[in-house]
Amino acid sequence: MAMTMTQKILAAHAGLESVKPGQLIMADLDEVLGNDITTPVAINEFEKAGFDSVYDNDKINIVLDHFVPNKDIKAAMQSKACRDFSKKHDIKNFFDVGKMGIEHALLPEQGIVTAGDCIIGADSHTCTYGALGAFSTGVGSTDMAAGMATGKAWFKVPSAIKVNLIGKLQPYVSGKDVILHLIGMIGVDGALYKSLEFSGEGVSSLSMDDRLCICNMAIEAGAKNGIFEVDDITIDYLKNRSQREYTIYKADEDAEYEKEITIDLSRLVPTVSYPHLPENTHPASENKIKVDQVVIGSCTNGRMEDMKAAYQILKGRQIASDVRVIIIPATMQIYKECIQKGYTEAFIDAGCVVSTPTCGPCLGGYMGILAENEVCISTTNRNFVGRMGHISSSIYLASPYTAAASALTGYITDPRSIGE
Amino acid sequence: MAMTMTQKILAAHAGLESVKPGQLIMADLDEVLGNDITTPVAINEFEKAGFDSVYDNDKINIVLDHFVPNKDIKAAMQSKACRDFSKKHDIKNFFDVGKMGIEHALLPEQGIVTAGDCIIGADSHTCTYGALGAFSTGVGSTDMAAGMATGKAWFKVPSAIKVNLIGKLQPYVSGKDVILHLIGMIGVDGALYKSLEFSGEGVSSLSMDDRLCICNMAIEAGAKNGIFEVDDITIDYLKNRSQREYTIYKADEDAEYEKEITIDLSRLVPTVSYPHLPENTHPASENKIKVDQVVIGSCTNGRMEDMKAAYQILKGRQIASDVRVIIIPATMQIYKECIQKGYTEAFIDAGCVVSTPTCGPCLGGYMGILAENEVCISTTNRNFVGRMGHISSSIYLASPYTAAASALTGYITDPRSIGE
Repeated sequence: MAMTMTQKILAAHAGLESVKPGQLIMADLDEVLGNDITTPVAINEFEKAGFDSVYDNDKINIVLDHFVPNKDIKAAMQSKACRDFSKKHDIKNFFDVGKMGIEHALLPEQGIVTAGDCIIGADSHTCTYGALGAFSTGVGSTDMAAGMATGKAWFKVPSAIKVNLIGKLQPYVSGKDVILHLIGMIGVDGALYKSLEFSGEGVSSLSMDDRLCICNMAIEAGAKNGIFEVDDITIDYLKNRSQREYTIYKADEDAEYEKEITIDLSRLVPTVSYPHLPENTHPASENKIKVDQVVIGSCTNGRMEDMKAAYQILKGRQIASDVRVIIIPATMQIYKECIQKGYTEAFIDAGCVVSTPTCGPCLGGYMGILAENEVCISTTNRNFVGRMGHISSSIYLASPYTAAASALTGYITDPRSIGE
Repeated sequence: MAMTMTQKILAAHAGLESVKPGQLIMADLDEVLGNDITTPVAINEFEKAGFDSVYDNDKINIVLDHFVPNKDIKAAMQSKACRDFSKKHDIKNFFDVGKMGIEHALLPEQGIVTAGDCIIGADSHTCTYGALGAFSTGVGSTDMAAGMATGKAWFKVPSAIKVNLIGKLQPYVSGKDVILHLIGMIGVDGALYKSLEFSGEGVSSLSMDDRLCICNMAIEAGAKNGIFEVDDITIDYLKNRSQREYTIYKADEDAEYEKEITIDLSRLVPTVSYPHLPENTHPASENKIKVDQVVIGSCTNGRMEDMKAAYQILKGRQIASDVRVIIIPATMQIYKECIQKGYTEAFIDAGCVVSTPTCGPCLGGYMGILAENEVCISTTNRNFVGRMGHISSSIYLASPYTAAASALTGYITDPRSIGE
């Protein structure tokens, strides 16, 4: 039977010749992931279930990133639970303070995830690794517990939507604009429990950071996973990085899709999701909306290209006087590279602060929580009511270009009106 | 009548020829200071009292440093209250995210406080500015409110203890060791409501950062203020920095002191205050105590020399594998200079994280809170029960040299056993 990329990966990991949508399978896992919030719950389930060892201490990843360096006593206790468990089971990929980064930026960067993998993570944005041609999805802490113990997980095989990309992005338009545009088209439940499979001649013009951003937000359309065809850009990225052999799974020519969507990249404009859903998209130029805070970072847009985009807009300029701008490189490596390239100094000179890597403000954790009625433009992934602070605050989602341009003017601004 | 340095400053600011210990006076204030925790309380008092304007919008300093970038909604509301008040009253020295630093590092750095000043701040470590030859003390938020409205404050003139410094510090011994040693000698109430007046030939060997650290912790001996004689080092520091004319007040030869203490700097060793009081001092070499976390920063030890001390110890080395190390340059200027000098990269390479300026962990705010039974060696100023997190956690106070050396070994370590 003809299969999509996702279906082929799942079949291979279930030891089956083929699978079809709706089929329940048990698949072998290449990696299991948790963070400082979800792992303690998983540890609790692991111990309650009476497991006394992990299936492979090389394949479990515990990343402290949400509330670390610890924001309060509860966070400190969560970190300690992760630390104690990692020590007890000799978990190789335990990322503590100083080694850490935001999980979904860190795992690809470190070559821990690779093409053809089947991965679960107790974090909804685990779908990010589809950018590398992997099947990767978010699960609950109980699934993480079972995954750590057995190295397996149950899945219902998803059907797929094919996203056919054509054309090439204009300057100051990026992967973030692609995924916001797509979510705007199909809605936050537009891909519910389906794979979003990205292919077409437009793929080759998208950088790996663009693709990671696009797959990262597949969940914001309800997708089970997002996945890109592997091409030379993927292979370049994996070379000298991937810790394991990779496998390339191509969709069959006659694979069935529930729907096919074509996006002409050349027609996309800087796009902003207005409160309170990612599907509520508008051109950045549409309305002059005053902002109090700008956040550039997160598992969605805290990578090197995102930092470069912010730098291109901010260098040699000053942010608006009544705006706070918080820039958060997603990993220690990116943080260091920003210093080496002079980005960090330029950000400081422009009036921004640069935080050590953390998920912090994205989920209302710390490092930039919003007060009553405050407005934030953010490169993060969710603009739900109260997500970043007070229930009356508002979040506008955008690309690093758009966020940086808005930092300069103090209101939501199309980056093309600013330029370098 | 013969007067001490403090008494002379107070007399001059009260418009009196002389004052004596115990006398109640009303003094003119050169600067009034508050932070993001204390200012909202002061604003409330200011408004409750019916004040509708500030005495001088050039002389009020509002610094967001404790929980900023906002750690939670409450902190966000506190920052917003400061921001709205500063806008309403056109406060010139309002330091928001991106312009900020820890108040007691920021005000001297920016030349806002100077020799001969009379200053109040709604923060106990306001005594720091005595290092510049100013009278400077912490007050409650109500006094801050009255100070903002009237430019005046009531004081009971303090008597004084004279600290006669002789000799010169050995390598890897710093201002922090001097003040910890002194507090160890006289106890946490050893200078209750008195001035600690530092003079003697040993003063000239102490850098301005040493002196700022020493005066910063005067309050930890219960002192009303700490103050250093103005010398060439002070004047060098103030030159091209002080925003106002300064005045030098020297103690009269025959000034009366409650006590005179002589400290031979050359005999001091790296000193650590054990839990749970700063007076509980021991040589760093005395016991091999395992630590979980190291914090280098704060209004006590987050200045350039402190960063340099940490760099000298950490450069080209690796921190112990089971220790988290959090380094916090105290102001945006210091943060930037650490980058320019290569300190930040060296810290990252050693395995540390570097935070944007904040008081954070010192007072259990955020950015490194301790879990149950965890042990921290910290360059901060208070090791009270639960100060940095869980009530069962322990804090050991030390210098940046000692803290950095302990980061390398994983237990409390005399920095002289490590060296450069």
